[in-house]
Amino acid sequence: MRALVLSSAEAPLSVQEFPDPVPREGEVVVDLAAGALNYRDVWITKGKYPGIHFPVVPGSDGAGWLNGKPVLLNPSLQWGDNPAAQGKSYHILGLPTTGTFAERIAIPAENVFDIPAHLTMEQAAAIPLGGLTAYRALFSRANLQPGERVLISGIGGGVALFVFQFARAAGAEVYVTSSSAEKIARAVDMGAKGGANYREEGWSGRLKAEAGGFDVIIDSAAGPGFPDLMSLLLPAGRIVLYGGTRGPIPNLNPQQLFWRQLNILGSTMGHSGEFADMIAFIDRHRIEPAVDSVFPLTNGQAAFDRMANGLQFGKIVLQIDN
Amino acid sequence: MRALVLSSAEAPLSVQEFPDPVPREGEVVVDLAAGALNYRDVWITKGKYPGIHFPVVPGSDGAGWLNGKPVLLNPSLQWGDNPAAQGKSYHILGLPTTGTFAERIAIPAENVFDIPAHLTMEQAAAIPLGGLTAYRALFSRANLQPGERVLISGIGGGVALFVFQFARAAGAEVYVTSSSAEKIARAVDMGAKGGANYREEGWSGRLKAEAGGFDVIIDSAAGPGFPDLMSLLLPAGRIVLYGGTRGPIPNLNPQQLFWRQLNILGSTMGHSGEFADMIAFIDRHRIEPAVDSVFPLTNGQAAFDRMANGLQFGKIVLQIDN
Repeated sequence: MRALVLSSAEAPLSVQEFPDPVPREGEVVVDLAAGALNYRDVWITKGKYPGIHFPVVPGSDGAGWLNGKPVLLNPSLQWGDNPAAQGKSYHILGLPTTGTFAERIAIPAENVFDIPAHLTMEQAAAIPLGGLTAYRALFSRANLQPGERVLISGIGGGVALFVFQFARAAGAEVYVTSSSAEKIARAVDMGAKGGANYREEGWSGRLKAEAGGFDVIIDSAAGPGFPDLMSLLLPAGRIVLYGGTRGPIPNLNPQQLFWRQLNILGSTMGHSGEFADMIAFIDRHRIEPAVDSVFPLTNGQAAFDRMANGLQFGKIVLQIDN
Repeated sequence: MRALVLSSAEAPLSVQEFPDPVPREGEVVVDLAAGALNYRDVWITKGKYPGIHFPVVPGSDGAGWLNGKPVLLNPSLQWGDNPAAQGKSYHILGLPTTGTFAERIAIPAENVFDIPAHLTMEQAAAIPLGGLTAYRALFSRANLQPGERVLISGIGGGVALFVFQFARAAGAEVYVTSSSAEKIARAVDMGAKGGANYREEGWSGRLKAEAGGFDVIIDSAAGPGFPDLMSLLLPAGRIVLYGGTRGPIPNLNPQQLFWRQLNILGSTMGHSGEFADMIAFIDRHRIEPAVDSVFPLTNGQAAFDRMANGLQFGKIVLQIDN
């Protein structure tokens, strides 16, 4: 088959011949029609992922055909029995196993789900990893209630936009942050009540005055800005952290945490029950994922460059001729 | 009436005449027989509490008599309607209002509870603030389940010892930390499965090897040692913070937090439903609070000195001749 292959950490991605997948017991082979990028894929191309080996086909998000039916793939493999945390065998589709940026993939049958009828292949491919991460963070972890006020940091990223759409569909009031005025404006066009540019001095105080504090904050940055987010929480507020792109949190105030009964909740990915619930939620609310752009697989490197530069608003999709 | 009075931040505490309490609507006057110290009282004597005025009678913990019945007092005043967090009117008995280290106190009738039959006045007086804080932290916040493994830092403190006794009564396996080998040994005598001295290099690795990690950690130190505690949590583990005696947390690792689905939960005091449940739990399990020592009210300064020096194992009680 043809696949988007990373031959080494230095080489650009290119479409090459790659061995066809051989399904193991319980697995099926899906003909892929589209994939989508995650930061995880960019890190893989930098050779930074633990356990990486070359050549490798990246890609955790995929949609395609199985027995003539349109399907999308749950990238969570071997979560285990405990809904509260993944077990030791847990891994994500795309590494160490062969990923979705290829014509075909072998995957456990239980990871294959029907695509909601209102979605195109490209939209469906945009969902899996980001939608699952957002769903668990917002519902299983933050336990969002209708009417609550939610702040989403770094709007424009794939997960952040799913959180945004899910929170709006669940009846929350949603605010956003970004370093880009344009991305904030786009979020407001999509129904955000307001937003703040976290590069501007005093942004958190102004946002607090405007919005009055938040029940729920969903963040993937951590880093030195985290205490600003904490200060925006209402008493008993929940902040869910699903990433750490800006590094360690350098100074956490315990008084604020205990006196205001705050909750800092780590979250990553999700289990198969959450994946099924997420797809049903998207179906019920007729949510169309925010697709930033669509590239042909042969131009995969350009898609990766766009993501590495942080230019996207929504998911970057790869079209796979099949 | 006679009361233990702090005339200024510099003066030692002394028993003096103080105006008799005048009950407002909904309040009753309780004849106090015993009080108990909390760190809060020590901070008050340092003049460091916001809103302090002199002269002041400290004391949040008290037990005594109302209409011939032995009673103890819930020190949580005006929590509000939200069980998840106290409202803006919330305050703790003892400041700004007159505290329990006196012959009499005026308090809302709803804050007066019957003393379980197996307890002395001195034991009952040891319960309120510490028992309430421990109960909320361990059950409402950490949601402790039977058979779980619990680590309690700083054993010897009043709250820590209530957490210890409650966790054991609820069927947990309990480990402790302290900077004192003697306090660890006492906890093991009381049923702790093990303990570690957090002043010793490499303590957390050894404790992890011994115990295998913890479902729940209850801490009031925060500070530079917090990441060591985090590393001892099992996946999906909960760490409840109810104080910050060692200051800000300088370096929190977001990867550890999200990948391991961890929970950092702030907790302080508790509402009246939790107080009632806590007293019922103590009654049901025939728990006798750990009383470190009993001082007469006239020797109150010595009791405060003992607490300020961190020598105690359990609650320091004041006996009030009445």
